[in-house]
Amino acid sequence: MAVGRDVLIGEGVSIFHPELVNLYGCRVGDFTRIGAFVEIQKNASVGARCKISSHSFICEGVTIEDEVFIGHGVMFTNDLLPRATTADGTLQSDADWKVIETRVRQGASIGSNATILPGIVIGKYAMIGAGAVVTREVSDYAIVAGNPAVQTGDIRQGR
Amino acid sequence: MAVGRDVLIGEGVSIFHPELVNLYGCRVGDFTRIGAFVEIQKNASVGARCKISSHSFICEGVTIEDEVFIGHGVMFTNDLLPRATTADGTLQSDADWKVIETRVRQGASIGSNATILPGIVIGKYAMIGAGAVVTREVSDYAIVAGNPAVQTGDIRQGR
Amino acid sequence: MAVGRDVLIGEGVSIFHPELVNLYGCRVGDFTRIGAFVEIQKNASVGARCKISSHSFICEGVTIEDEVFIGHGVMFTNDLLPRATTADGTLQSDADWKVIETRVRQGASIGSNATILPGIVIGKYAMIGAGAVVTREVSDYAIVAGNPAVQTGDIRQGR
Repeated sequence: MAVGRDVLIGEGVSIFHPELVNLYGCRVGDFTRIGAFVEIQKNASVGARCKISSHSFICEGVTIEDEVFIGHGVMFTNDLLPRATTADGTLQSDADWKVIETRVRQGASIGSNATILPGIVIGKYAMIGAGAVVTREVSDYAIVAGNPAVQTGDIRQGR
Repeated sequence: MAVGRDVLIGEGVSIFHPELVNLYGCRVGDFTRIGAFVEIQKNASVGARCKISSHSFICEGVTIEDEVFIGHGVMFTNDLLPRATTADGTLQSDADWKVIETRVRQGASIGSNATILPGIVIGKYAMIGAGAVVTREVSDYAIVAGNPAVQTGDIRQGR
Repeated sequence: MAVGRDVLIGEGVSIFHPELVNLYGCRVGDFTRIGAFVEIQKNASVGARCKISSHSFICEGVTIEDEVFIGHGVMFTNDLLPRATTADGTLQSDADWKVIETRVRQGASIGSNATILPGIVIGKYAMIGAGAVVTREVSDYAIVAGNPAVQTGDIRQGR
């Protein structure tokens, strides 16, 4: 079982396969459901009544508000120029990079296999298409798709 | 081990790491091979002599016929507008959405990290390029690639 | 624990969750770090001081040199026309296809959810954008992004 003792877990959270996830140092809000093969890192925060689907990765610096849907295989990021080592060839440690923060606002949905670049706000009830690569801010209620993702509609007007 | 007792498993199926998969309520045909970190949901059906590679997700409503190759990190979907909750903020249950079905016909191949939108038929012996996002029907023998995927060739004429 | 006895592991390698990876018949160099839900196949080679992030798949025929960063959900490939079976419908075995090799040179970084087609060399210190689908050679120091990936900059000139 890879649910760390330092995880702050709310009331009624469902982790269907605690032996097949990797959660540490994060918060998970009330009644949120978490699938298999999910990793949530330290200093990430997931709100209440969210659905975090299988194979997704939520990194340090990501804040997910309440009632958000994260599809399968979704990858968040927190560094624009990631490296394994510093310029002198020694392994990078936490001190060697600054986490760039990302926020997903209430009720948004992120489609499966989407990739979220760092430093982005995804607006309330926005809908990120499956396979999209999100490289900049997404407005409330916007529907976006593609690589890079562009707005294709508004959820208030249907598709 | 996360292979449910309700999984209908054919003869000679290979699941290389039963402790690292999540299979429940699905069918898997004879001699099919299933890699690590694979999830197959209830009411999904996989044919005979298929290869389901690591990190792939096959959801409810997906029918995979015989002799199909599913690459690594392939994500199927069954909902165009997924949400964590209903409009009043309560968690969605199975009753709150209609599964949209997808079919992959005999002998087709789906490249690694491809994403398959719901409601699609992928034709016989079609070849879906790695990283493709498939948003509409794929003809028999077609080669498709890109996001969104477009046809780039026909497997009968080579690439 | 799915770290095979045939894995050649260097000094000081960190595998954070040995029960949540699948490594067999490969080499891993000194001080490299490997996240959860990673699969590394036989005849793959990972250098020293690399970071292999969660959910990534490194297949047979891939050589990763020293100090390389592999993001989360990165998929390598080794076959352009993968099939589950041979033309007569019997299961493919190793004898039925030729592995196409891929090399990632020293210090390169591959962003999360990127897909690497087979037969490619990724140059020294190159930077592959998150979600990119790399279909041809990447020069030393190049920054590439998109599907298919195109060069968008040079790391020596910043972004």
